[in-house]
Amino acid sequence: MTEKAVILISGGLDSTTVLAMASHKGLDCYGLSFDYGQRHATELDYALKNGRQWGLKDHLTMTLDMGAYGGSALTDKNIPVPEGDFSEGIPVTYVPARNTVFLAFALGYAEVIRARYIYIGVNAVDYSGYPDCRPEFIAAFQNMANTATRAGVEGDPIIVEAPLIHLTKAEIIRKGLALGVDYAQTVSCYQLDTSGDACGRCESCLIRQAAFSEVGVRDPTHYQA
Amino acid sequence: MTEKAVILISGGLDSTTVLAMASHKGLDCYGLSFDYGQRHATELDYALKNGRQWGLKDHLTMTLDMGAYGGSALTDKNIPVPEGDFSEGIPVTYVPARNTVFLAFALGYAEVIRARYIYIGVNAVDYSGYPDCRPEFIAAFQNMANTATRAGVEGDPIIVEAPLIHLTKAEIIRKGLALGVDYAQTVSCYQLDTSGDACGRCESCLIRQAAFSEVGVRDPTHYQA
Repeated sequence: MTEKAVILISGGLDSTTVLAMASHKGLDCYGLSFDYGQRHATELDYALKNGRQWGLKDHLTMTLDMGAYGGSALTDKNIPVPEGDFSEGIPVTYVPARNTVFLAFALGYAEVIRARYIYIGVNAVDYSGYPDCRPEFIAAFQNMANTATRAGVEGDPIIVEAPLIHLTKAEIIRKGLALGVDYAQTVSCYQLDTSGDACGRCESCLIRQAAFSEVGVRDPTHYQA
Repeated sequence: MTEKAVILISGGLDSTTVLAMASHKGLDCYGLSFDYGQRHATELDYALKNGRQWGLKDHLTMTLDMGAYGGSALTDKNIPVPEGDFSEGIPVTYVPARNTVFLAFALGYAEVIRARYIYIGVNAVDYSGYPDCRPEFIAAFQNMANTATRAGVEGDPIIVEAPLIHLTKAEIIRKGLALGVDYAQTVSCYQLDTSGDACGRCESCLIRQAAFSEVGVRDPTHYQA
């Protein structure tokens, strides 16, 4: 029997690459996305498009009101997204406990559909310094998941895979291009404008642009003029 | 400065007792409840009432569509709640990853309001055998939380308190009564009827009834005739 995997997909560059990787492994892939009060719905449109391209068996989009407690530039429109000058430490775009929440739902979904794997596109090389993107977080979540679930207690735990965690952004893009990912259908910007164009100034845009430049391929993103 | 605590409150016997305990400690208490597709909204009404009684500084109720993936008698109305004959192992009332999801949101909320504590009323003595009510789960979640958050990375982690975990249900009730908890304003039944009366037959009702009997106090629950 083909094994199942829950893939966390956001419409971003990383998670779309992970989706392509899991799909190429021949897993039956189930997408999980969140409408969590992020600044722009374009991400979710891309998540749906990519899900169709990569043949998801099912795709669940859950609505979460993380804006109820705010605390991040990505969920509270009163906190501006920083541009250009990136100070040390964890930036205000960090959404408290976001990956813990996302993985918690993935764990529940995986347990219900009896999936063996959860795939998440976290990366700890070219990233914004979020604590919940680091290998020690993924390892600790795995350990917790083993005790939290029926699957874990019964000795057949759900495995959290984070295949990009040690890659540079350029390596991720090379891998995705080799698998056929269409990066025009992905978004990295923290503050797309109303027409869906990227700002080109936030940390996420700058990391993306530098990586495409390193790979030597044109970044297909529409940037604001 | 008075320290803050996020209290997970469901309107049940355990979490209401925990709320009273945290309140008696002199903490500034912030309630967090979930409308997650459970069978009856009476639980949430009680959570709100208890929150007012115990002087919550704020009370957030988040709507979560855990029924989107179902998989439990508590979130999928097509799966009946067992009565009377309780077989070995984890029952169908187990909601996959429920406490992982609840604690994940509590972690985010605690981080945003800079709370030092999260209180959760899990209990591993008189309980239904859910994996995410056991001490090893709470310990593993704590370990994960330390790596997941800005607070953890900066060396001032949010502490998960589960003060009931080793108590019998009778001990919990004695403690609550001593603190002034009104157990008439709590619900344990997995399948209240439309008028809010408890069934008296599900595992949760039987555990509650046995405990009140052991304490020698009348159970104020309205049971179906």
